[in-house]
Amino acid sequence: MSKEILYGINPVYETLRAGRRDVFKILIIHGKNSKRLERIAALAGASNIPVERFKGSDLKMISGTDYHQGVCAETGPYPFVDFSDMLVGNNGGEAKPFLLLLDSILDPNNLGALVRTAVCVGMSGVIIPKDRSVSPTPTVSKSSAGALEHVRLSRVTNMANTIKLLKNNGLWIAGIDRTADESIFACDMNIFNAVVIGGEGKGIRPLVKKHCDKLLSIPQTGLIDSLNASVAGAVVMYEAFRQRLLSKMF
Amino acid sequence: MSKEILYGINPVYETLRAGRRDVFKILIIHGKNSKRLERIAALAGASNIPVERFKGSDLKMISGTDYHQGVCAETGPYPFVDFSDMLVGNNGGEAKPFLLLLDSILDPNNLGALVRTAVCVGMSGVIIPKDRSVSPTPTVSKSSAGALEHVRLSRVTNMANTIKLLKNNGLWIAGIDRTADESIFACDMNIFNAVVIGGEGKGIRPLVKKHCDKLLSIPQTGLIDSLNASVAGAVVMYEAFRQRLLSKMF
Repeated sequence: MSKEILYGINPVYETLRAGRRDVFKILIIHGKNSKRLERIAALAGASNIPVERFKGSDLKMISGTDYHQGVCAETGPYPFVDFSDMLVGNNGGEAKPFLLLLDSILDPNNLGALVRTAVCVGMSGVIIPKDRSVSPTPTVSKSSAGALEHVRLSRVTNMANTIKLLKNNGLWIAGIDRTADESIFACDMNIFNAVVIGGEGKGIRPLVKKHCDKLLSIPQTGLIDSLNASVAGAVVMYEAFRQRLLSKMF
Repeated sequence: MSKEILYGINPVYETLRAGRRDVFKILIIHGKNSKRLERIAALAGASNIPVERFKGSDLKMISGTDYHQGVCAETGPYPFVDFSDMLVGNNGGEAKPFLLLLDSILDPNNLGALVRTAVCVGMSGVIIPKDRSVSPTPTVSKSSAGALEHVRLSRVTNMANTIKLLKNNGLWIAGIDRTADESIFACDMNIFNAVVIGGEGKGIRPLVKKHCDKLLSIPQTGLIDSLNASVAGAVVMYEAFRQRLLSKMF
């Protein structure tokens, strides 16, 4: 069975809190007083997960990085959610979902940041393709401040077919494209059940774009005309979140 | 005189395009056909800047990174803008400025992403403190996709005093704080001439916070309640930008 080494305070703490993956062992740095590390040890103890103490240099070797912050976890593989469960919203059977579809995000820091924002605004799930995408690695969990351990993440073979499937199930899909005429700010985002964000530099692939119900742009001004992929995603998710908050208010 | 080695296609290209720093030499990888590299060579040639060809391993050694993308530039120091010029808006003397104040951003990737978004929405300037902040290094320029070369960036000794000074000059300052009652979405952001974003993890320092005219929060939901600093900044800048676009429309 494949094992993973998660590292960093947030990823390990959120993994224990989420209770979604098998945790075989917690590895904590020896001889360092830290409330946050002891909180992890206590949480592990409460679940009968063994806690072992190591030197910092050992943790560096085990995790393969300097950024372990004194703690690692030996866990089972990432707990993907089945695609069929993506059709359900946050509140169970009745509410429609609001999904984030990521086409070809290659940078683990971008995937981490996007997942973190998705959890912050309560997106009901995130979908990534199997190929041409970074996987939900320990680095992504670290970049997401542990949000990866909570998010409902599904991996699909073909993003264009996935969009067709979502549409067949009555969902409306918006793709974010810098050449689109209509702006996210001028559009009723409440009608969409999924937004598609393209990869770094190249945006959404043409075949994926073709299947979106509508293409929307993020307004920009000034000398540089391209946003970072994780920022573009955050701006879109937050605009949709803002409009949803507003529509609940009136 | 201190020299810097910028690396990466966007930083080098935008440095030449911005024309703000001295560029002594462009270093391009030998024997690689690339339109974007040749565009840089042509731009340098037009300004009589020498272009020299190197092996990739040399560029790696010179830049100290694998991420040089086949091009470096030997330049003068970063062209800071004088604080006194921060009181002026984008359109010259009459318009009030709209500034981004960054209190204790320590991660170069966050500073880069914040600067990139600031340029995308047309913020009139960015202010960072001299201590307790990452400097505008070549890594920041790379993370900003070269936006650092265009942004009006000022460095101040004391952020709390700077806010007092801005207020004495008739500017209104909003600080972003996760404990604030009022949300950025419920507030008229048009009245503010500067927003303050705090550093990773800890937010705005208490003394700086005390001097803000108003504290505003970014609404959040779900299991994780902290946004990445560069995402928080992007959400605030974009909400202000949206409201400004809207107020111009009606």
